[in-house]
Amino acid sequence: MHSLPQLLELLDRYAADHPFPAAPRELYEPCEYILTLGGKRLRPAALLMGYELFREDMAPALPAAWAVELFHNFTLMHDDIMDAAPLRRGKPTVHTRWNTTTGILSGDVMLIRAYSQLAQAGSPEVLSDLVHTFNRVAREVCEGQQMDVNFETRPDVNIPEYIRMIELKTAVLLGGALEMGALCARASRADVEHLYHFGRLAGIAFQIQDDLLDTYGDPAKFGKQVGGDILQNKKTLLVLKTLEVAPEADRRALQAQMQTDAANPVEKVAAVRAIFDRSGIPDLIAGEKQHFQDEAFAHLDAVAVPDGRKAALKGMMEDLLVREY
Amino acid sequence: MHSLPQLLELLDRYAADHPFPAAPRELYEPCEYILTLGGKRLRPAALLMGYELFREDMAPALPAAWAVELFHNFTLMHDDIMDAAPLRRGKPTVHTRWNTTTGILSGDVMLIRAYSQLAQAGSPEVLSDLVHTFNRVAREVCEGQQMDVNFETRPDVNIPEYIRMIELKTAVLLGGALEMGALCARASRADVEHLYHFGRLAGIAFQIQDDLLDTYGDPAKFGKQVGGDILQNKKTLLVLKTLEVAPEADRRALQAQMQTDAANPVEKVAAVRAIFDRSGIPDLIAGEKQHFQDEAFAHLDAVAVPDGRKAALKGMMEDLLVREY
Repeated sequence: MHSLPQLLELLDRYAADHPFPAAPRELYEPCEYILTLGGKRLRPAALLMGYELFREDMAPALPAAWAVELFHNFTLMHDDIMDAAPLRRGKPTVHTRWNTTTGILSGDVMLIRAYSQLAQAGSPEVLSDLVHTFNRVAREVCEGQQMDVNFETRPDVNIPEYIRMIELKTAVLLGGALEMGALCARASRADVEHLYHFGRLAGIAFQIQDDLLDTYGDPAKFGKQVGGDILQNKKTLLVLKTLEVAPEADRRALQAQMQTDAANPVEKVAAVRAIFDRSGIPDLIAGEKQHFQDEAFAHLDAVAVPDGRKAALKGMMEDLLVREY
Repeated sequence: MHSLPQLLELLDRYAADHPFPAAPRELYEPCEYILTLGGKRLRPAALLMGYELFREDMAPALPAAWAVELFHNFTLMHDDIMDAAPLRRGKPTVHTRWNTTTGILSGDVMLIRAYSQLAQAGSPEVLSDLVHTFNRVAREVCEGQQMDVNFETRPDVNIPEYIRMIELKTAVLLGGALEMGALCARASRADVEHLYHFGRLAGIAFQIQDDLLDTYGDPAKFGKQVGGDILQNKKTLLVLKTLEVAPEADRRALQAQMQTDAANPVEKVAAVRAIFDRSGIPDLIAGEKQHFQDEAFAHLDAVAVPDGRKAALKGMMEDLLVREY
């Protein structure tokens, strides 16, 4: 079996062997560009690890793994336009470096390219299964993005809706990647489903952790500006939980904070954190995260292969889910 | 065999039986909306006619036919954003009626929905063939759109490049639709290819005709404003041919016209038409169109089924290609 660095090396080599066409340059250069911005290749690595639970001849799983990474980057390219985001990982986004037309069209061709990669995968039967899973997940990711857009202007978002949004927008793709790894390996229906739910639930836990880290993360480790969600008045899980459990005075204070732009950002972050802290929100949210995490690993435990084979996948996911805050 | 109105009725019924999901409404309503703007369903009808050359049990071809129509409408939704087009068929475009975010995201889900429809088509073997064709055509359509975008700012476009652009941007989808009809029917490789080239070449002829009609069409029949290309200073085939064959004075006069906005639209259209007419451009372009049309029908003739079976497909395509100017 392969270590994570070995799998990433295999992926890099596969990608290098399958570059975008050279022309039209204006169409494909942005696709190559976004792939160089230093993503962690988490989803394709998960697909390969899911596959390797059952089989070790990695070649049949690489096209599907790369398809998932291309799909993820297609969503980034289009989401960055919708969010009017100037930067991604500290570099200009595609629509900023080029223009909106380029961001749309290069994103489109990247999605189509994802399907083309998928079509390289194995027998017609495997392809048929993969396309069905990929279609379902791709549709759900769009639905999650739409929910996220809707939430920006909706005053009455509740926690189950929020969890459903992060599930669709990001978690199902991690679940789908693991499912596709199992499909490539012709695993049993039961194991395919356990792997899907493992990824989906771990993905939800990961997003909950992301909300926590945005406010409570160690600035040295987090990689983004701590307090960014507070300054953008984002309706994160911390906010929704506060509006559910805090005393009325704190609920009002939080709503007042969210209706104004920060005159003093440091003060605003401190004030909102104090509101969260008074109701023990960090522990409540950490508990929510743990709940999804436990459910996730129960599904991994249920996959019918020896525990030893699961070590790499378990280790990678644990690393992702134990980041301190 | 079915008449064109019968095929369109089958398609309408199929579409009605396969609506978009109800939620999130903001995502799917624009998809239903653009499908009601009165497109002619030319591409899916061609797919069904291609299929019916070989088989008459229409059900296996309907999902692929609808997939092609969904793909076409996805391209319209995104192209309208890129072209900043306020209207389509006299109605507000999606990004105008809603906003750019909606135009991007609903377009994305429509493309994914096209693949989902495709995945309903028949056996894994047929699906594998269909996905390969669909991917190739979808990629080429994006490449054609990029070439079209590039041409707007390039001063040195030549006629072969222009033909290649219209081939990729629009003709390969008609060719691909016919190819997919033949694939659904499990036709021979040779017949699949003849049908692809029939559609592709007829599609080029159709686009050339569109350039001609835009300047020389009967306003009562054309459906768009005659002279629109001239007023937008578009580098159509008429312009490129004039720059190739006209005397220097006329070439300069045309370039001068194209570098200014029209103070008097009627005068500008008349002046540019006079330049075209002096070099016999309409007849030259009609000759180009005839060349592609003849090549197209030679491929239809070569399909190994009795001529009688080809009558409906031949009739539909002839109707499209004999519009007077």
